[in-house]
Amino acid sequence: MRPVALLTDFGHADHYVGVLHAVLEREAPGVTRIDLGHGVKPGDIWDACFQLRCAWPHLPAECVVMAVVDPGVGTDRRAVVVSAGSRSLVAPDNGIAAAVSDMTSAVILDWRRMDLEEPSKTFHARDLFAPATALLACGAEALEFGDEVEIGSLQACPLPEPEESPSGLEAVIVHVDHFGNLVTNVRGSDAEPSATATWRAGRTSRRVGTYGEAQPDEVVLIEGSAGFLELALNCGSAADATGLERGDTVVFSKGER
Amino acid sequence: MRPVALLTDFGHADHYVGVLHAVLEREAPGVTRIDLGHGVKPGDIWDACFQLRCAWPHLPAECVVMAVVDPGVGTDRRAVVVSAGSRSLVAPDNGIAAAVSDMTSAVILDWRRMDLEEPSKTFHARDLFAPATALLACGAEALEFGDEVEIGSLQACPLPEPEESPSGLEAVIVHVDHFGNLVTNVRGSDAEPSATATWRAGRTSRRVGTYGEAQPDEVVLIEGSAGFLELALNCGSAADATGLERGDTVVFSKGER
Amino acid sequence: MRPVALLTDFGHADHYVGVLHAVLEREAPGVTRIDLGHGVKPGDIWDACFQLRCAWPHLPAECVVMAVVDPGVGTDRRAVVVSAGSRSLVAPDNGIAAAVSDMTSAVILDWRRMDLEEPSKTFHARDLFAPATALLACGAEALEFGDEVEIGSLQACPLPEPEESPSGLEAVIVHVDHFGNLVTNVRGSDAEPSATATWRAGRTSRRVGTYGEAQPDEVVLIEGSAGFLELALNCGSAADATGLERGDTVVFSKGER
Repeated sequence: MRPVALLTDFGHADHYVGVLHAVLEREAPGVTRIDLGHGVKPGDIWDACFQLRCAWPHLPAECVVMAVVDPGVGTDRRAVVVSAGSRSLVAPDNGIAAAVSDMTSAVILDWRRMDLEEPSKTFHARDLFAPATALLACGAEALEFGDEVEIGSLQACPLPEPEESPSGLEAVIVHVDHFGNLVTNVRGSDAEPSATATWRAGRTSRRVGTYGEAQPDEVVLIEGSAGFLELALNCGSAADATGLERGDTVVFSKGER
Repeated sequence: MRPVALLTDFGHADHYVGVLHAVLEREAPGVTRIDLGHGVKPGDIWDACFQLRCAWPHLPAECVVMAVVDPGVGTDRRAVVVSAGSRSLVAPDNGIAAAVSDMTSAVILDWRRMDLEEPSKTFHARDLFAPATALLACGAEALEFGDEVEIGSLQACPLPEPEESPSGLEAVIVHVDHFGNLVTNVRGSDAEPSATATWRAGRTSRRVGTYGEAQPDEVVLIEGSAGFLELALNCGSAADATGLERGDTVVFSKGER
Repeated sequence: MRPVALLTDFGHADHYVGVLHAVLEREAPGVTRIDLGHGVKPGDIWDACFQLRCAWPHLPAECVVMAVVDPGVGTDRRAVVVSAGSRSLVAPDNGIAAAVSDMTSAVILDWRRMDLEEPSKTFHARDLFAPATALLACGAEALEFGDEVEIGSLQACPLPEPEESPSGLEAVIVHVDHFGNLVTNVRGSDAEPSATATWRAGRTSRRVGTYGEAQPDEVVLIEGSAGFLELALNCGSAADATGLERGDTVVFSKGER
């Protein structure tokens, strides 16, 4: 059986994630279940795309990933299965389904062709995405669920790309993590080692290689675990120290080669 | 082996939930474990009953559910195993054990008859409920643990029922979820589609079918995933927008047929 | 295969814990995974040591425990595998590796000898500790990973011990739990049943056996589930009620025998 992994914005206050696991176990007894995370900011498709991209390279081969952040649940937004390498991604067609780069095909989920009851208007994760994930884990082919569509017809992933500007590379903070690190959309390999980050008039951070190189209370620029540059404060929260938030801009100097 | 599912108010700051999993794995190696949730508000038996009822229909057959919110731990409140359909519920006799509807028998947990050490005064989940759950998962019968008692002798589930009043159906908010949705104790099928909800003098919400029908910043009434009517704000928190809390009253108009 | 258990300060907002599970499943397919907890306060080695010690006695035999709170990640702090009874502990050598009492040997993790790629500078949990944990789960011997070192060379666990003083036994609050209980470093068996705790000039708590013995709004002293004395408020938060925090001092009177 294929392993499954779950990414949602459902949090941990309720039974919602637990019910997904219950449905998976009911429909695919003994399936290997991985919680990729349920702390995506509520309704935040950027955050879902970012976390999915960061985790993707580390997933087991053949994994079926269900990624659901779904403000449009119950409307006519499409639900899809995307094939990407040996893995599958089950997600709403709201940008998340197009977040991974090695897509080879996309199929619409049609509950009428999946031997399911009509889904509720508010919990497709339980009524549609989890049953589809369980079926794929048990060996079903995506084409049994509905019609294939062009990959190009999927809603594009809305994550912004950094932009060149006269003052340098304009980056955006796309994720704020548990430690208060402010993760930008610029890869470490796309900025010089001597680059600095200006995050507010007159406030600049230098790049370091490890947390150990930072001075106490110094907000530094460091390459995070997924390869993106982050503003970080060792033993503290850069978010609290700077007041910066997801969506805010940071400008990287070119540095010197 | 029967799968097990856990519902508690232990949260995620500590090792408490981890120790439950460790005990289950130690006593029933390889058992399938599902975290139904650990975000029940601390000590809130209403919330535990509500979440348990919502999740119950989706659990695998034969599942052993351990539901522990236990302000009376260490006192002489009873601990029980309830059989309900093919499933079992292991819980303190404080209202939670009586939360499900299809109960057929109830047995008192007596640690002296279970080959256990004397439980601590503060963590029966680890010392009594989890070992009982593991034994049931491995095929033990509840009657091996103690004496059968009348179902009617169990503490009643304290969740309030909605009440008819001259102004309409008086509902109570029984759960506030991760998204800030305010979940009432009225089933969608018990109110007319044209019903409105008055939640404060002069403040009324109309009923919609999906989040997509709501206007920006409009608090609407929607049937949630477990069939109960909720006050909700699409892409926002109805709890923050209204200031309402668990226990507050909402009045549903009868609507027109 | 040996079961594995994870303890970190990574929280639940991100994909970090999910990626650890993905790596474990990728490298040791079908391994039994237990989340001992991910709510250690960020960077708090005291808290990690305390939670690890509390959970340790309840873990399955043969368990491989990975405990990572690692402010020194990317510096030259060592990474080790400690053998302790039938279990193994994989951790940074920053005090956590020395938190358990029955250690018999310690081996340095050397990624060059483990057929791994060079670890990132910021996520050794993913790149070094999780692969080592997976290999141990699959039957590898620690000595395949690097050189043995003296147990005495490990950084000592920094958890403070209580100290005798003229006014009584000076304890420290080492953990504040999800319920707001203030857990001290004094074992219940090291204080008399009639002992009282003075936690601020003129503010004293009496010892009780169960929560049920406390008066409403009374902060009491109770032996918690791991055997340590805690300040607790039944159906409320002692942390909120007292304003006390981790690191604060509490003085236990000797009581009368």
